[in-house]
Amino acid sequence: MNILLVYAHPEPKSLNGALRDFTVERLEAAGHAVQVSDLYAMSWKATLDAQDSRERRGDAPFHPSLDSKHAFENGVQAADIAREQERLVWADTLILQFPLWWFSMPAILKGWVERVFAYGFAYGVGEHSDVRWGDRYGEGTLAGKRAMLVVTMGGWASHYGPRGVNGPIDDILFPIHHGVLYYPGYDVLPPFLVYRTGRMDDARYAQTLDALGKRLDALAHTAPIAFRKQNGGAYEIPALTLREDVAPERTGFAAHVA
Amino acid sequence: MNILLVYAHPEPKSLNGALRDFTVERLEAAGHAVQVSDLYAMSWKATLDAQDSRERRGDAPFHPSLDSKHAFENGVQAADIAREQERLVWADTLILQFPLWWFSMPAILKGWVERVFAYGFAYGVGEHSDVRWGDRYGEGTLAGKRAMLVVTMGGWASHYGPRGVNGPIDDILFPIHHGVLYYPGYDVLPPFLVYRTGRMDDARYAQTLDALGKRLDALAHTAPIAFRKQNGGAYEIPALTLREDVAPERTGFAAHVA
Repeated sequence: MNILLVYAHPEPKSLNGALRDFTVERLEAAGHAVQVSDLYAMSWKATLDAQDSRERRGDAPFHPSLDSKHAFENGVQAADIAREQERLVWADTLILQFPLWWFSMPAILKGWVERVFAYGFAYGVGEHSDVRWGDRYGEGTLAGKRAMLVVTMGGWASHYGPRGVNGPIDDILFPIHHGVLYYPGYDVLPPFLVYRTGRMDDARYAQTLDALGKRLDALAHTAPIAFRKQNGGAYEIPALTLREDVAPERTGFAAHVA
Repeated sequence: MNILLVYAHPEPKSLNGALRDFTVERLEAAGHAVQVSDLYAMSWKATLDAQDSRERRGDAPFHPSLDSKHAFENGVQAADIAREQERLVWADTLILQFPLWWFSMPAILKGWVERVFAYGFAYGVGEHSDVRWGDRYGEGTLAGKRAMLVVTMGGWASHYGPRGVNGPIDDILFPIHHGVLYYPGYDVLPPFLVYRTGRMDDARYAQTLDALGKRLDALAHTAPIAFRKQNGGAYEIPALTLREDVAPERTGFAAHVA
């Protein structure tokens, strides 16, 4: 299949650089077509602004979503944005690989999401009615494709456990898994996580590559996280709250996983 | 008191621009000294990289935290980083104002955090021992100061409620409240939230300003979110998990609020 790896680390001679190279080799050896968006190497423009459209929509003040809509609909998006969208459409599977900085993705990758996930492409898709609230959360332009995070962290696994001081890693990643990837339609696979990167000896590095290799080999048939489709009957519309009879005792992020 | 407003919206003629102007006027009228870091107007460099140090630490590959440490310790940080750190030290209260984009802060603000919250300044502070794990989560350089988010959202309040499809807003903001602000020592006040910004009529705009004004008037005596101090006895060290006798039935982000 076609796989896009979006990679966000500033130094090729790093653990992340080594994991990226391993990933590309493993996937190509298995017969997949791979493209890499190496955001630092591309000097990716991280900041969403009025320059993201080659032609403004008149004299109105810049409006992030209305200008994005205008640029996408009229084919006047900045060239770097359009090229990344083409790669997303081409790819059957998307991998985002990054170090966790301040409990989220690096700014350069956040800016890739903000600029590439345009209005009409990744949000603002579909109709609103009494039974639908746009094509999102399980529906949308990228439905039928798969996505997976590869995330490195300096902290220990216990720091990110159910009662760890940083909060559970599943909850830290929920805004990305559910809010960034499931939103425009992706089936989201469980993440591949590497803890305590500052103390990586040869044995653990070998174990890490072995485990990552197995996850890459299994991309096509790993069960995705069972997020609930927004328009599938589980949610009231337009309040977009879970119906009373759906997991009635549950609240929070975990309530959105069946 | 001294107040720093870090503001991240690309268009002055916007709801965010109006809220920023209102905030500055209200605070100055109350006798506070106010500085504004208007990241878009400053053309803030969002991407953390090797250029953030004016002098590299030898020929080693770039390492985000080790190079940050070297630059901070040796006074060779990029000038824009050092200036923002001076503002943070000057300010008794920090306000971060931004639109919620893809369930987090805009990339330009994330990049402000990554570059300004340097090793030795906001992380990598203090000693590690059997009873302490650095000066963080309630201790650190910025302890004794207060911080508050002002966040605008297109979605409805119900979409961000306990069973809303986006997840509860308190959980979405936890990585910022706890992971970015409480981590280097801030007391974090409850956020000021504005929903459904696409449908803001005059009456609701007036209500919004009134409510924001009251929050600004009360900055000095609003009770902060009761996060638990990492080194205060609630956590095992070094596992950094809540002790068995602390909120034994609870897991997840909410377990870290007393």
